[in-house]
Amino acid sequence: MSTVTLWSDEQARGNPEVNAVFDEIRRVRQSDFVNNFWRALANDPVQLRQVWDQVKQVMGAEGELSPLVRELIYIAVSTANGCSYCVHSHTASAKSKGMTNQQHAELLSVIGLASRTNALATALQVPVDSVFDLQEQR
Amino acid sequence: MSTVTLWSDEQARGNPEVNAVFDEIRRVRQSDFVNNFWRALANDPVQLRQVWDQVKQVMGAEGELSPLVRELIYIAVSTANGCSYCVHSHTASAKSKGMTNQQHAELLSVIGLASRTNALATALQVPVDSVFDLQEQR
Amino acid sequence: MSTVTLWSDEQARGNPEVNAVFDEIRRVRQSDFVNNFWRALANDPVQLRQVWDQVKQVMGAEGELSPLVRELIYIAVSTANGCSYCVHSHTASAKSKGMTNQQHAELLSVIGLASRTNALATALQVPVDSVFDLQEQR
Amino acid sequence: MSTVTLWSDEQARGNPEVNAVFDEIRRVRQSDFVNNFWRALANDPVQLRQVWDQVKQVMGAEGELSPLVRELIYIAVSTANGCSYCVHSHTASAKSKGMTNQQHAELLSVIGLASRTNALATALQVPVDSVFDLQEQR
Amino acid sequence: MSTVTLWSDEQARGNPEVNAVFDEIRRVRQSDFVNNFWRALANDPVQLRQVWDQVKQVMGAEGELSPLVRELIYIAVSTANGCSYCVHSHTASAKSKGMTNQQHAELLSVIGLASRTNALATALQVPVDSVFDLQEQR
Amino acid sequence: MSTVTLWSDEQARGNPEVNAVFDEIRRVRQSDFVNNFWRALANDPVQLRQVWDQVKQVMGAEGELSPLVRELIYIAVSTANGCSYCVHSHTASAKSKGMTNQQHAELLSVIGLASRTNALATALQVPVDSVFDLQEQR
Repeated sequence: MSTVTLWSDEQARGNPEVNAVFDEIRRVRQSDFVNNFWRALANDPVQLRQVWDQVKQVMGAEGELSPLVRELIYIAVSTANGCSYCVHSHTASAKSKGMTNQQHAELLSVIGLASRTNALATALQVPVDSVFDLQEQR
Repeated sequence: MSTVTLWSDEQARGNPEVNAVFDEIRRVRQSDFVNNFWRALANDPVQLRQVWDQVKQVMGAEGELSPLVRELIYIAVSTANGCSYCVHSHTASAKSKGMTNQQHAELLSVIGLASRTNALATALQVPVDSVFDLQEQR
Repeated sequence: MSTVTLWSDEQARGNPEVNAVFDEIRRVRQSDFVNNFWRALANDPVQLRQVWDQVKQVMGAEGELSPLVRELIYIAVSTANGCSYCVHSHTASAKSKGMTNQQHAELLSVIGLASRTNALATALQVPVDSVFDLQEQR
Repeated sequence: MSTVTLWSDEQARGNPEVNAVFDEIRRVRQSDFVNNFWRALANDPVQLRQVWDQVKQVMGAEGELSPLVRELIYIAVSTANGCSYCVHSHTASAKSKGMTNQQHAELLSVIGLASRTNALATALQVPVDSVFDLQEQR
Repeated sequence: MSTVTLWSDEQARGNPEVNAVFDEIRRVRQSDFVNNFWRALANDPVQLRQVWDQVKQVMGAEGELSPLVRELIYIAVSTANGCSYCVHSHTASAKSKGMTNQQHAELLSVIGLASRTNALATALQVPVDSVFDLQEQR
Repeated sequence: MSTVTLWSDEQARGNPEVNAVFDEIRRVRQSDFVNNFWRALANDPVQLRQVWDQVKQVMGAEGELSPLVRELIYIAVSTANGCSYCVHSHTASAKSKGMTNQQHAELLSVIGLASRTNALATALQVPVDSVFDLQEQR
């Protein structure tokens, strides 16, 4: 149940811009499966293209953080934002990139701890220590 | 400006439970500095002890995620929860554990992307694909 | 599955306060349909009346923002708060008030952008520029 | 107090990519002022460019929602996400695009109402009415 | 630094609606002090009146929850929503209604625990047990 | 549909640590029923033990807040965090500890009011009054 229609493969084939993105998703992931997020986004071909390009660039580019670490960060943000769909899809992604049960457990323990201390620091309204101030450090 | 008093070292020395935690923080971090979060928590020595023990265990224990990766996840959660104090203190922590400017930039790009797609998935109310369903996979 | 019972029309007819609000909803909307939100709120007739009066006044009163623009703002807040029910009901409302697919797409692109920059500004802890300070402007 | 250094104009002039974006911001806004958000983002020239391009496209492109309505939506999202910097900067933006005090008041009344009903719908766990289901409508 | 001007007592005296609310606040609280929240809300006299009436009714009316318990719930919500102003003002309110340091500590321990388990339940996407389903219980 | 498997009683019996916690849950609650949250957490026996110990201590220990008041605070936090599972399970808990319909209604009215004023204070960026400043009070 979504607020827009989910585009079928047939509908996608009728729109060159949408079809091009769906094809790219399949090629990059080496799988025929296109998940619902993209089928919903297809209603706005411009945003579909931009989000896909950003995903490719941010999650796939060479860098100093491994693809798996990026997925763990993605799950952490999605959890704190309460996005059920994103928690599901990125947990699946992380598993497909090799996340072990032990790593999943450690990820959850950090998320649980951070959520607890975030709430405590907010309820206590702790003032930021001046040593954390970049400006003062100089 | 906090909702409780921040304990000075002198006050801490007057309470054995609080003092023991402050001493441990100094020993583990090999630094005399005890940041305001702990000085605020000191008003409840039981919670102070529990949170410190959880921090030691979750952030310090041997495991499959490096101490730096755990800090990155911590920053991600703190950002999504809007905890200003925690963003400051854990960004400082991550730097002290070797986070490079490039890693910081990559972390931020994942946080920015996830925040965008979290909002889109929620606004679109995308239904979770059945392939993500663990139960159905079996 | 809700945490309270959803009042049927029959139950509503047994309580004059609840029934009066249900009747008003039907009259104002020119439809027999009363959605589940009101059927859940009916468990507290005082709050039911207050929320309905606030909805009528805020969403229906003459003003400088059109009824459709108010619905777009409602969807934006509901998305950021992760309220699934509200995203559904107010997207339906916006459509009934004439929201086009193009407007829906533009709304989503602003929500996506704001969510990204909100997260970045928080992770960067950007200090508010003094020119934004109303007090200083004078 | 930010977690990264804020780039001065002098620093920006030393980096062609950063300088190009700063110049564009000044040209588009017809003002010499570059606010802190961009000075913080400058630490990652790639993200700086992408975010600026997205802002230009989403907030500036021709469309069915007026530039002012887009700013109102931006403020709504930023408020719900608790981003202090963004509330300040986009309230200033909205004023520069003609937001009246009356419009500001109406915006706030919708934000206040939505926040109240979002919380109530979540606490009541109201099930989504089947008429809101796009799939069932067909 | 606020997005609207804060009304001084002199300004308030020039507007009968605003002045009436300020006078009521002083009478109910038996204090000359009117805090900034009301001085900011004064820019929209209609909303000022409505919010004040809601506060009086919800926080002050006879009921089964004591005024102090209502303040504790207020602090809990304000913390989870990350509203710095509200955490400050309602912690002060709770103290003025007799909150002890021990009660404050217990409140914080529940907030910390709930925040931890909220995050874990979301990251695990735990399905709601059917026994919690009101409908099934019958 | 969860991101991990939910442990059956049979699986639990095969792991002494998990089994010990499940047994304790049954003993403390004097019921055979173990809800899904614990069955999901069982995948990480260390975290299962810690969370259960924290729940017992925070929710069950003698103190100045009654067990019911603690549940009300739990519901308030869970609502603001948008945790559907937690709203369900703790509303059930609160009912089992005697929460009346009237108390539930009052809880919801405070949650609704706080959510409204939290959003308003954030949108207005109201500066914290100096009288709320503990440091200045001295």
